[in-house]
Amino acid sequence: MATVRLYVTLKPSLLDSAGRTVAGSLQKLGFEEVQEARIGRLIELQVEPLDQARIDEMCRKLLANPVIEDYRYEVIG
Amino acid sequence: MATVRLYVTLKPSLLDSAGRTVAGSLQKLGFEEVQEARIGRLIELQVEPLDQARIDEMCRKLLANPVIEDYRYEVIG
Repeated sequence: MATVRLYVTLKPSLLDSAGRTVAGSLQKLGFEEVQEARIGRLIELQVEPLDQARIDEMCRKLLANPVIEDYRYEVIG
Repeated sequence: MATVRLYVTLKPSLLDSAGRTVAGSLQKLGFEEVQEARIGRLIELQVEPLDQARIDEMCRKLLANPVIEDYRYEVIG
């Protein structure tokens, strides 16, 4: 069984309103050193068997929205 | 300016209902090799100056719920 760790992030050119809210909240709590926050998803899959072409297909079809999001993944063990 | 990449995940002992739904959807789409999916958050912070003790404090106070979530982070550049 392989573990695939996927990172889905909003494309850098897009405004991340949730991230902006988090950055603002941190600053209000006294963490003035925070300049920016961006929020993404971390998805961990257990797959058997592993076929990396199919992982890409899963990302394009369900796990990420390729219009507004980037994704990358790593296989761990 | 330092970039801190934070990974927030549900504790392994807890049922991840969103992850279960994603795994079920992938299987229905024909990706029968998916045994399990777990979903977490990826938070990228730009901080200046960087103080790692304060990053831990941010996690405990706002970014993660230590009762049900684990977090880890890495500093990149």
